[in-house]
Amino acid sequence: MIKPVWIKHAAQLATLASDVKGPRTKEAMSNLGLIEDGSLWIENGIIHAVGTTKELENRFSDKLHKAEIVDATNHLVTPGLVDPHTHVVYGGSREHEFEMRLKGATYMDIMNAGGGIHATTKMTREATEDELIEQATRRLDSFLSHGVTTIEGKSGYGMNLETELKQLRVMKKLQEQHMIDIVPTFMGAHAVPPEYKGREDAFVHHLIDDMLPVVAEEKLAEFNDVFCEKGVYTPRQSERILEAGKRLGLIPKIHADEIEPYGGAELAAKIGAISAEHLLKASEAGIKAMAESGTIACLLPATALYLREEAAEGRKMIDHGVAVAISTDCNPGSSPTTSMPLIMNLACISMRLTPAESLTAATYNAACAINRQEQVGSLEVGKQADIVLWNTKSYQELQYLFGVNHVKSVWKKGIKVV
Amino acid sequence: MIKPVWIKHAAQLATLASDVKGPRTKEAMSNLGLIEDGSLWIENGIIHAVGTTKELENRFSDKLHKAEIVDATNHLVTPGLVDPHTHVVYGGSREHEFEMRLKGATYMDIMNAGGGIHATTKMTREATEDELIEQATRRLDSFLSHGVTTIEGKSGYGMNLETELKQLRVMKKLQEQHMIDIVPTFMGAHAVPPEYKGREDAFVHHLIDDMLPVVAEEKLAEFNDVFCEKGVYTPRQSERILEAGKRLGLIPKIHADEIEPYGGAELAAKIGAISAEHLLKASEAGIKAMAESGTIACLLPATALYLREEAAEGRKMIDHGVAVAISTDCNPGSSPTTSMPLIMNLACISMRLTPAESLTAATYNAACAINRQEQVGSLEVGKQADIVLWNTKSYQELQYLFGVNHVKSVWKKGIKVV
Ligand SMILES: [Zn+2]
Ligand SMILES: [Zn+2]
Repeated sequence: MIKPVWIKHAAQLATLASDVKGPRTKEAMSNLGLIEDGSLWIENGIIHAVGTTKELENRFSDKLHKAEIVDATNHLVTPGLVDPHTHVVYGGSREHEFEMRLKGATYMDIMNAGGGIHATTKMTREATEDELIEQATRRLDSFLSHGVTTIEGKSGYGMNLETELKQLRVMKKLQEQHMIDIVPTFMGAHAVPPEYKGREDAFVHHLIDDMLPVVAEEKLAEFNDVFCEKGVYTPRQSERILEAGKRLGLIPKIHADEIEPYGGAELAAKIGAISAEHLLKASEAGIKAMAESGTIACLLPATALYLREEAAEGRKMIDHGVAVAISTDCNPGSSPTTSMPLIMNLACISMRLTPAESLTAATYNAACAINRQEQVGSLEVGKQADIVLWNTKSYQELQYLFGVNHVKSVWKKGIKVV
Repeated sequence: MIKPVWIKHAAQLATLASDVKGPRTKEAMSNLGLIEDGSLWIENGIIHAVGTTKELENRFSDKLHKAEIVDATNHLVTPGLVDPHTHVVYGGSREHEFEMRLKGATYMDIMNAGGGIHATTKMTREATEDELIEQATRRLDSFLSHGVTTIEGKSGYGMNLETELKQLRVMKKLQEQHMIDIVPTFMGAHAVPPEYKGREDAFVHHLIDDMLPVVAEEKLAEFNDVFCEKGVYTPRQSERILEAGKRLGLIPKIHADEIEPYGGAELAAKIGAISAEHLLKASEAGIKAMAESGTIACLLPATALYLREEAAEGRKMIDHGVAVAISTDCNPGSSPTTSMPLIMNLACISMRLTPAESLTAATYNAACAINRQEQVGSLEVGKQADIVLWNTKSYQELQYLFGVNHVKSVWKKGIKVV
């Protein structure tokens, strides 16, 4: 039997516990369920009790000597962070494009030089499963060292059945091998594959008829995502793909309104997507529709920074009643980062979320965006003991002293992994 | 006697060695003096030899068995980073202001609530030397863990003789106690002290007559800096302060054109300042004048990000022949960060420096901005063995995989400190 773990004397224990069930909106995003001199009792990887140090000391007085004790004096303690949107499994690297872009190359120059998403598609198609696992493992290790204990992962660098399945199988293996939980999303419609250029409808048919059924049959994904954007997939095509997935039990997600307002937010609300992503150019009507439908806005401020775009209007979305989650968007083209702490900082700086809202967006609401709110995202009795101890004394300081990875230690299912 | 250290097999050794003496401009900023399969031989804290692994292996064949060997296979190796502009010694913390600001408080709201620079001045005046040392030490530790081995530090949260001297003495003690080298700058004219509101000229007199001579006499600073901005010190007042310092042997620096074009860059060139700082709104004429005078532009992209301002035009400055350095501007109000790796990333992303230019700006040119180019900033025979080994294989990857502290280990004067 594993020893119980007793984390005690946390300067601030941000439990994120609340009576509000489901994605949190408005004032609920500011309620961190804070406990001063907070304490957690963990048994067999599960949170067994939460309270003040005094309370738990009394309650477990006859077991204290058996526990592994973690003194969190002067430290903030939070749930493990959740990253609800990554493209973490891919082949190759594209740092030379970054340099080209800084030297003045346009998007088209890079595409003509064989770069862009098609470069990653080519390298991902050519990579073996083992190569993809090795590369992704390094990224997962980095996520973990930044306090992230659960991530979503998308396919979408194959855009043919064989490689899409390869990416999803790699995620399945990573889920078995790595301490991080990885929740899979099928995204065959991440771009228009080169073989189908100008024949988008034919690819949509192929995806619906030949790819989605296999993914569902083999239970390789829980979500179905599509890149709805002018020149990629229209709202009409996106709707057909997402509705087809729904019929097979795959929950819809949608990359929406990143480059221009295109009705993506509206579509997300209409079909009941669990989340809509990016939303840099989402319309007022789309934002209101999402608030009504309860669709989570998954916002990606590092992508905006990296592409030198204005970040999404996170403040306005929260004020309109939308539940906001945040994510790295970890991918080789537009956001090659693994730092959720930086994402929390940027959510404050670029999108004007408060430090409390930012933490909710990176924990509980992020868990809701991948349907894991029953297991992770808050520190409540019965949930997984996914916990971060920070080198700051408060969540305010965590966001204020920005650009630094303040993680001190990380527990995944009760096991210290960092 | 200390063992020699042999760092070998660096995937990329960026020596920053060059025949160009003094601050590097234009193409010289892109020349990193790269050596593949690079190698360094260190004796008594000094770089004794630089070359390929093969070359050093042959040259030191009879001493190899006596050396401590560091295998840098697959790793980038660079000079220790230099941060040429920090306000690292200060009292208190201002995270509550960050939250106020995100909740919509204006600068004036915060000032009226007792916040802003005057809050830090009050807390710095009240702090004991020991308290300041303890706080600053934590920040210096963080700098070191981010690969920074030399920083500049400014006074300027006292704005009375007693506290300015206290800040400078704290820096002197830190220089003795801490592994980081800290180069002191006097900045009594950081703002208008509350006691002198509306009587700026009187304070300028006081500073010139009563403060500068003591600072120079006690050799507490090498540089003299002033905040030249509308509503703070005029170019005329700034010039008087900087000229007075020059007569006492203090090299001029200037916070210039941060909020609006105010002739700060022009003044910097005119009086031969070693560097001008911020420069977000510097005029075209000012930039050209700086290129001619050889004044280094010390750019602070995290401050721009934190304050939601457009970053300085780093690309344009380099194209105009200005030598660019970059810095955290570490301070409690507008840039509470200690991450030079993030600054390098932002220099690329927000100011369009190339990865190579960004590294030069954070090493050799940064050393020039604090007159330490003879000791640090490049890996050349006879210089201090201040070295960083990175968890990336190239300087391109270091900038591309952004927002992450890729430091693996750090040597200061030949001693492994991280
Ligand atoms: Zn994405
Ligand atoms: Zn400054």
